[in-house]
Amino acid sequence: MSRVSHASPPDGFQPAPGVGFEDLIGPLFRREVDGIARFGFRVAAGHVNGRNAVHGGMLVAFADMAWGKPLAVHGYDAGWATVRLTTDFIAPAPLGAWVEASSAIIGRDGDLFTVRGEVHAGDQVLLTGSAIYKGFRRRPGD
Amino acid sequence: MSRVSHASPPDGFQPAPGVGFEDLIGPLFRREVDGIARFGFRVAAGHVNGRNAVHGGMLVAFADMAWGKPLAVHGYDAGWATVRLTTDFIAPAPLGAWVEASSAIIGRDGDLFTVRGEVHAGDQVLLTGSAIYKGFRRRPGD
Repeated sequence: MSRVSHASPPDGFQPAPGVGFEDLIGPLFRREVDGIARFGFRVAAGHVNGRNAVHGGMLVAFADMAWGKPLAVHGYDAGWATVRLTTDFIAPAPLGAWVEASSAIIGRDGDLFTVRGEVHAGDQVLLTGSAIYKGFRRRPGD
Repeated sequence: MSRVSHASPPDGFQPAPGVGFEDLIGPLFRREVDGIARFGFRVAAGHVNGRNAVHGGMLVAFADMAWGKPLAVHGYDAGWATVRLTTDFIAPAPLGAWVEASSAIIGRDGDLFTVRGEVHAGDQVLLTGSAIYKGFRRRPGD
């Protein structure tokens, strides 16, 4: 059974293959919610700490990549870089849990976007915080 | 050639095998500096973003696990959990760079420790920030 099928994502989620680090910590999945990509993953053996709960490093890495996705709708087709990431850890999630991220842009100054985000498992918030991302374009303009 | 030997760590660093997520994002290495474990890794293909630089998610995950190490000298033999992690991204590092973390405890309130930390490649700071960790003991006491 492949890593992807073993993760058995909820209905509506499709595999979101990435390169490099995003591939390493995957498989990640995505679905569109109001035109914005929302990401999820199933907590597997490679995601846990010594207490068999999802590792804090996995949660912050997932937040870093998932919380920036709303920038895509603003035309940042060459991606974005994280400027600042602030995360508060609320609760752990066990091996096998399905974990999702959501975020929303709450401020903008030119190419700099401030985002507020969450990582949750069902109704349980695991991580909350905010981030500043700098967007990049292949061609300047809005 | 194994993942570990391919990483060719600087003199003094030894493999620091971990479980779960720490194994997934490795190989990580450690050396003792003033009795505190300092961690490092060589930026490999699995650590990069689409720009062939170390992924921000890898930097924050590495910071999360490495910055807590000074708690070990306070007898927290059952590990620690991250309560808050705040990171500022200063510069990228390319594929092949050797990356290290350092941190110091700057505050304590019972089992809660505030740590200031850095992730750097040579003289170049990549990431700076702070964290709050809660330590756990197998047996209570100091």
